[in-house]
This record gives sequence, structure tokens and C-alpha cells, in this order.
Amino acid sequence: MEATTPFYLSAEALGQLAQEILRRHGVPEEDAALTADCLVWANLHGIDTHGVIRLKVYVDRIREGGNNPRPTLRVIRETPVAAVLDGDNALGPVGGVKAMRLAIEKAATAGVGLVALRHSNHYGAAAYYATMALERDMIGFSTTNVLPSMPPTGGREARVGNNPLALAFPAAEEPPVVLDMATSRSSWGVLFTAAQAGRPLPEGCFLDAAGQPTVDPQAVLAGGALLPIADYKGYGLALCLGLLTGLLSDGHFDTDLPHPYRFLDQPGQNAFFMGALRIDQFLPPERFKARVDAVVRRLRNTPRAPGVERIYLPGEKEWEAARERRRTGIPLPPAMVEELRTLAESCGVKAACLP
Amino acid sequence: MEATTPFYLSAEALGQLAQEILRRHGVPEEDAALTADCLVWANLHGIDTHGVIRLKVYVDRIREGGNNPRPTLRVIRETPVAAVLDGDNALGPVGGVKAMRLAIEKAATAGVGLVALRHSNHYGAAAYYATMALERDMIGFSTTNVLPSMPPTGGREARVGNNPLALAFPAAEEPPVVLDMATSRSSWGVLFTAAQAGRPLPEGCFLDAAGQPTVDPQAVLAGGALLPIADYKGYGLALCLGLLTGLLSDGHFDTDLPHPYRFLDQPGQNAFFMGALRIDQFLPPERFKARVDAVVRRLRNTPRAPGVERIYLPGEKEWEAARERRRTGIPLPPAMVEELRTLAESCGVKAACLP
Repeated sequence: MEATTPFYLSAEALGQLAQEILRRHGVPEEDAALTADCLVWANLHGIDTHGVIRLKVYVDRIREGGNNPRPTLRVIRETPVAAVLDGDNALGPVGGVKAMRLAIEKAATAGVGLVALRHSNHYGAAAYYATMALERDMIGFSTTNVLPSMPPTGGREARVGNNPLALAFPAAEEPPVVLDMATSRSSWGVLFTAAQAGRPLPEGCFLDAAGQPTVDPQAVLAGGALLPIADYKGYGLALCLGLLTGLLSDGHFDTDLPHPYRFLDQPGQNAFFMGALRIDQFLPPERFKARVDAVVRRLRNTPRAPGVERIYLPGEKEWEAARERRRTGIPLPPAMVEELRTLAESCGVKAACLP
Repeated sequence: MEATTPFYLSAEALGQLAQEILRRHGVPEEDAALTADCLVWANLHGIDTHGVIRLKVYVDRIREGGNNPRPTLRVIRETPVAAVLDGDNALGPVGGVKAMRLAIEKAATAGVGLVALRHSNHYGAAAYYATMALERDMIGFSTTNVLPSMPPTGGREARVGNNPLALAFPAAEEPPVVLDMATSRSSWGVLFTAAQAGRPLPEGCFLDAAGQPTVDPQAVLAGGALLPIADYKGYGLALCLGLLTGLLSDGHFDTDLPHPYRFLDQPGQNAFFMGALRIDQFLPPERFKARVDAVVRRLRNTPRAPGVERIYLPGEKEWEAARERRRTGIPLPPAMVEELRTLAESCGVKAACLP
């Protein structure tokens, strides 16, 4: 096999492998299943930066004591529409899914559910949680704080996370509208992928430790920073998401999060804020979804700029990637295959699905 | 008086003048007062693009039949946490304030309030509504759709509004954190101000009718467009805000809004989405506000990039402008003074406060 040819593995097989690896590290079956599902969902949707590339650090952090494989989530405060949860240092997807499920349950009863969860860890793709609301005819919302990665406008030291924002709206015949955006121009995922592949970074998106622009992934990993989208607007939006997560949960603010890769033995302290909103309070969901379809088509059919072949809706590329990858399997680069095999072997899991 | 020297008028006198002018056009006293307050609040906070510069078109639209000066707002649907209102073609601030008051009332009782209002008009500065929640120890949220002003990424025809997003968080001793951002790189306000002043537009923010970049305000006014922040992220965020406003209210989507300046006799059809969230459901508000103070100070004290004198928090410049302008009065350029005087004379209002 050529060194750059990917190996295609079905989402089911990849999920089974990830789940087995997590179980061997003490994660209970249900939690291992949902964590694997969250990671493989990202791969399936073409968001490889938030997929099984994260499995190794999840596992390393359990081994080193930074993550609790058997957490007991606690409800700190609760009203019919809101809750604060303590994640007991759960794996991010474990805390995230349970927080989003609670938000959806509250919305089903009270019309809206807003859940802040503290003391958790990296939760993967924000869209994964927001889209959980769709099949209930709800609008979904999800955000997490992440380690400080951007300076405030005018600063040269990272003090706010490139906190992501995900919003999901159901459609009828069209794919749902799913916005999932970091508040930085690029992302840590792009950085890690570039570092792993030895590729340069996109220009104008990263700073080195001295606050100078760089395209060298190693220079960024050595104490650099990301730049926010749209200057002060991106910084302001990231800060607001930091207040909704870290402060409403009475957990850690961005600046106080330890680096999850550098300090494998310390809790990541990520906080999440999840929301679900029942559409039938406003209008019949069927009517809402039909109108979303109409908007989607109207935007897709906008006259195009020269050289543009197609106009996409938010989440549409990912929706199409999932359709494609359900058919072809998920392409895993050789280095990823090798990492998964080593990981499996290190804990006695038979990786028969890998080449 | 030199042609460029501004005239300084107190917020109270300017508000009184605006209110009188609105009353002479059939707007009831309370509605005239809150509309004037909304416009003057923007001037006071240095957001002159959303201040009394809009009064003339508000009045012209009442005269031409595009706005209903005596609307009866109707509740279309209502649950303890949500409502849909029909604005009966009210002036934007009249619909906006009543929608936000209802969101705050609902939050006071049920913890959260989310109100979608349709069939309204231009509502001024988004932050005005979001900050209404602050004195109740709530987080405030406000957005409106606006006329189609940006193409989707890859398109060359405006099909989505540069819909603004405002979020307000209370602090204890520090100014509140107030984000108010358009989803475009620049704004219609900047365009109108530049057109009025005969100044060129900022580079890279506007397109002409052929989809080419331009800095000529007249070229944009002749069928051009704004560009979204952060490319597909800004387009995606604007679209989501368009779904929350136009679709949840079952009103008009961005693309169906008639141009409020070109069609003075047609309802503007703007839709709003307002939210209020009671902080005490999550943690004691005093603790939340003290922690916001700490975050504000930590960001303000970030080591600065070379040449940067000061780091600002979202809304801090506006908060300081208000403190300054309460002392000095609001600076009105000669053209603005002239416009106000002409407007006052045209409806028999004595503008004794103007030079």
C-alpha cells in the first residue's frame, strides 16, 4: 500500500473499534458507545479534525488520570427550563450527550431547555449535540469553552478560547441547516492535522509565541495563538460563549483551562452550554420545515459569482460527506491506521478490521 | 459656525424633539417616547448610524403609509416561555420594546422568555433591547432580520440580511459585557453616513451591482451588496438569525423584505427574536456578576501588541461614549441639525433647542 493511500473503513467497524478501546480503559459500555459514536459521526461528516484523531488523547488522559472513565454526573441546580450539571470530569461526549439529552427533555415538557455543564472535557464536534434536537422538531444549540487560544483584540497573549457555536434547524425534504463554526479563523484541528501531515498552515490565521503571524504548525504548538474571525466581533462572540459556558455553569473560564494535551493528568475543565427549543410553540413544525426548505432552495439558486460551481447551505457539505462515506467507508490516512492499531494493541484489542 | 463643527445637544433635549416630531405624526405619547429613547440611546452610546439619523425615514414612512403610527400588537401564540406577536406594522422600536418586555416578563416567571415578532420595521440598535434585561439580572438577547444585503458564499446577488446579533451580560462594578455585531463586515449605517458625508467606504466590505468590490457609496446604493464577516461563517450566522426571526415568527424571510427607503409606502416586514434568561437559575447573580468583573479585568490586562494603548471589552467603548456624551451632549453634524430643523418645521414643531 502506498504511503498516502487512505484505508476505507465502515463507520460501524470504526465505531466498534473505538468503543472496544474505550471499554478496555474502564469506560462503561453505554458511555464508550456514545463517545465512539460522537467521534465517528465527525469522521462520517467529513470533520476528520474532530473524529478518531482525538481517540488517542482521550485514552492517554484516562491512563494518566486526567479523565474519569466512570463519572457520576450531579445536578447542582434545576428549574423546569434550566439546569447546572457537574460532569465529574467525564469524557466530553459523555457529559455533552447527557447535558443535551436533559435540555431536550426539558424542552419537550417546558418548551425550552438550557443546560450548563461544568467539569467536563473536550466534546468533539459541536454540531453533534445541536443536531440531536432535530428529530424532535426542535432547534438545537451547543457550545463549549476551550483552552485559551486567542488574544482579545489588541492583545498578544491567548486569553479566550476559540469557542465554537453550533445551531441546527430542521428542514422537511432538504438537509437540515446546521451551522458549526469556531470563533477563530482556523482551528486547533487544522493545526493538529497539519502538524501530523507536515503541511503548512493557512496564512493569516495563526500567531507564534511572540505574537507574529506564522504558517509553521510547530511554532504555534510552542505557545502561539489563533486569530479570531472578524477581529473584535469574533473576540466578542468567543467571550460571550465563554460566559455562557464557564460562568453560567459556575465552572472554569477559558483562561483557567489547563492544556489537555500537555497536562494529561489534569481535568480538562471544559464547560458546555446546550439548548433545545420546541418549534411548535411558535408555529406548526411542518410549516416551519417547509419554509426552511424554501429558504434553502432560494439561497442555493442565487446567481453565482464567476467561477463558482455551486452554492452550499451551512452543514450541506457535511451532510453530503456523510451520505458518501456511508457508501465508501471512512478514509483513514496510513498514519491514522497505524495510530489506531498501536492503540488497540496497547490494550489488547484485536483490530481485525484494520489492514 | 464652521460647516463641520458639530452642535452639542443634550440627550434629553434631542429626545424631546424627536418625541414631539413623532407625536405630530400621530404616534401616541408612550410609543413616541420609547421610539425617541431608542434612537437617542444609540446617539448617546456613540452609535450615530442607528440614532436620530433614522428619524426622517421613520417619519417619511408614516407619512407615506409604510408605517402604522397606531398599531395594535396581537399575541398569535403563547406559552409560559415563548410567544409569537404580530406587530401590526409598528415602528420598530415600538414592536421591539414590547416584544423584549414580554420576553423579560416571561423570564421573570418561567426563567426564560423567547419572543418572535413579525410585521414590524427597522428597530435601531440591537443592543438597546438586549441591555433591557440587565437590570433584572438577566442575560439579554436580540436580533432582527433586515433587507437582503449579502449574497450567500459564492453568490453575486444579495439574498440574506446582514442580520445583527446582540448579547448582554450584567457585571457588578465593571460595565456590562454587550456584544452588538452585524454579520456583515461593515453596515448600512456606515454606508449612509459615508454617503451623507461624501466619504469613501472602507475597503473590502462592499460590492457594486455587478458583484465587484467598491468604495463608492453611490455604487452600493445602486443595487450593490455587503460582504459577510468571515465568509461562510458570517453567511451561516446571518441565515440562522434569519430563521429565528422571519421563520419562527411565521413572518417574512430576509429575501422578501421590501427596501424601507425605496418603498416608503410599504410595510418593512422586519421580524425580531428577543430573549431573556434569568441568571439565578444557574448561580447567584451576585456571584455571576463578580465573576464577569474578574473576566473583564483579566482580558483588559492582557499583555498588549506593540502600538496598542488599551484593550476594550465588547460594549465598553459605547459605555464610555455614553458617559462622555451625558456630560458634553450629543454632537450633531451641521447636516443633521439642518435635517432635524427641516423635519420639525415641516410638522409645526418648534425646534428651540437647535441653533
